[in-house]
Amino acid sequence: MANKAPEPIVLVGTIGIDTVITPFGKAENVLGGSGTYFAVAASILAPVNFVSVVGEDFDQWPELERENIDLEGVARLKGKTFRWGGQYRENINLRDTLFTELGVNEKFAPVVPESYRGCRTVCLANVDPPAQLNVLDSMPNADFVVSDTMNFWIKQDPDTLQEVIRRSDVLILNDDEARQLTGKLNLLEALESVHRLGPSTVVLKKGEHGAILALGEDFFAIPGYPLRRVVDPTGAGDTFAAGFVGYLQRAGFRDPESMRSAAVYGSAMASFCCEDFSIRRIRTLTLKELQERVEAFRELVRFA
Amino acid sequence: MANKAPEPIVLVGTIGIDTVITPFGKAENVLGGSGTYFAVAASILAPVNFVSVVGEDFDQWPELERENIDLEGVARLKGKTFRWGGQYRENINLRDTLFTELGVNEKFAPVVPESYRGCRTVCLANVDPPAQLNVLDSMPNADFVVSDTMNFWIKQDPDTLQEVIRRSDVLILNDDEARQLTGKLNLLEALESVHRLGPSTVVLKKGEHGAILALGEDFFAIPGYPLRRVVDPTGAGDTFAAGFVGYLQRAGFRDPESMRSAAVYGSAMASFCCEDFSIRRIRTLTLKELQERVEAFRELVRFA
Repeated sequence: MANKAPEPIVLVGTIGIDTVITPFGKAENVLGGSGTYFAVAASILAPVNFVSVVGEDFDQWPELERENIDLEGVARLKGKTFRWGGQYRENINLRDTLFTELGVNEKFAPVVPESYRGCRTVCLANVDPPAQLNVLDSMPNADFVVSDTMNFWIKQDPDTLQEVIRRSDVLILNDDEARQLTGKLNLLEALESVHRLGPSTVVLKKGEHGAILALGEDFFAIPGYPLRRVVDPTGAGDTFAAGFVGYLQRAGFRDPESMRSAAVYGSAMASFCCEDFSIRRIRTLTLKELQERVEAFRELVRFA
Repeated sequence: MANKAPEPIVLVGTIGIDTVITPFGKAENVLGGSGTYFAVAASILAPVNFVSVVGEDFDQWPELERENIDLEGVARLKGKTFRWGGQYRENINLRDTLFTELGVNEKFAPVVPESYRGCRTVCLANVDPPAQLNVLDSMPNADFVVSDTMNFWIKQDPDTLQEVIRRSDVLILNDDEARQLTGKLNLLEALESVHRLGPSTVVLKKGEHGAILALGEDFFAIPGYPLRRVVDPTGAGDTFAAGFVGYLQRAGFRDPESMRSAAVYGSAMASFCCEDFSIRRIRTLTLKELQERVEAFRELVRFA
């Protein structure tokens, strides 16, 4: 799908140490964070220039050191790495937060290294909106901006978030977020309202129920990939975004047709993410396996 | 899609008088019931021989008198027609029952008219499992049996229900029902468990999230059709079944490929049903409009 080596994606997102309990087991002090999931997943498709922060205690570098991930933008600050604990219920769609220790994330003002500033594709994963804007302002050549959002910021900092959305070409959010952001219960109306805020493409993630995209006047929908075992859904949204942006970066196209294919890559990536705890499955995932699942999607939705 | 005039479908299902309140308004004393929705919708695609019951008070015959619906099997008994009232919340996926007056449904033992008994396709809509078995036993030539189920009977009469399922070629049920029937939370596991109970095709309806089918070893998934306004979801499941069976009856095929197309017809039919109260939208629906929505589905899920 690529004619030449893809350009790097500049990514800002969190790195965290997670403890996750699901009906299938427990993973303690494993690598997590929106940036981690995105970087590891997207690196299968395109190079990632990673802007993030860790504390002095961070010792999981080997997990992040991958051929396609540049870590120059990951600051190491005095203090502790962000930690998060969550427990999923028997109905794996429901999650309770056990603890959140912000650590160095509390005072993080991302600095984009000089070597990243000429890049054209920017992905703003889930960090606070002022940090997202900060990164955008450091990227004079940015011509393709993809943002991911999260409930928390919709309540906490709606004005800055609106500014981030206005400056985004693609906004990726989940159904709850879309409803909360727009006040519309109907997903189609919510999608259209988000559309009017700026992004030419809006991707609405529905977890196990797949995703729906607003592409100008058109819509694209893809069901969730049926998995026999969802071991740990943490990072599914981030890896969806990674597959989505990674595909586009590799293909080099930004047209609505490519957005459809990108959503299938995102869905395929997210389905792998859920098959094991933390980044365990996506860390070993190959491009070939990813493409095979894209073909499985094609077979899944095919009708005469 | 048809080479010759389709054979009739023998249908057993309820006829009721509904009062429905949704965020979009209220409809009082309108025609409802699983059989009504199924018969009116399926009659767009194939003839329906309807087995049901009404009370002496029933005065909505003109709504049911349609070219493709035979009403010989609709018994008129002493007593009142089944009545149901329901109110949908602002989140249209949630519904509270306001009242249920069984009336003549309480003592209904369906009698299949002689003229229906030679038919080969039988659709068992939501009535009590003994009544479903009763109908099946009256149909010596039945070689394609499609059943629809409902939470209530899973608790109330599991043994008879299992017998109905065992004798069905296709079972249509929703996600909650599948979980309740099998004890499996994971939908894929639930689908496979239902599969093992007998039906060679299992259709799992997920409301606005579409449907997923187990077809032997394969799966087919279709997202929900995005509607700007869901005015009244009552009957969506019944009209899905009607579009599904109606398509197969018209096409004359029973292979897995046809099941995929049938599910798209079912989804298209259900989407129309939700656009207005009661049977108002499907009553005026044309085959051409239905086929246009099937094409809209094709466009919705298409990717390169």
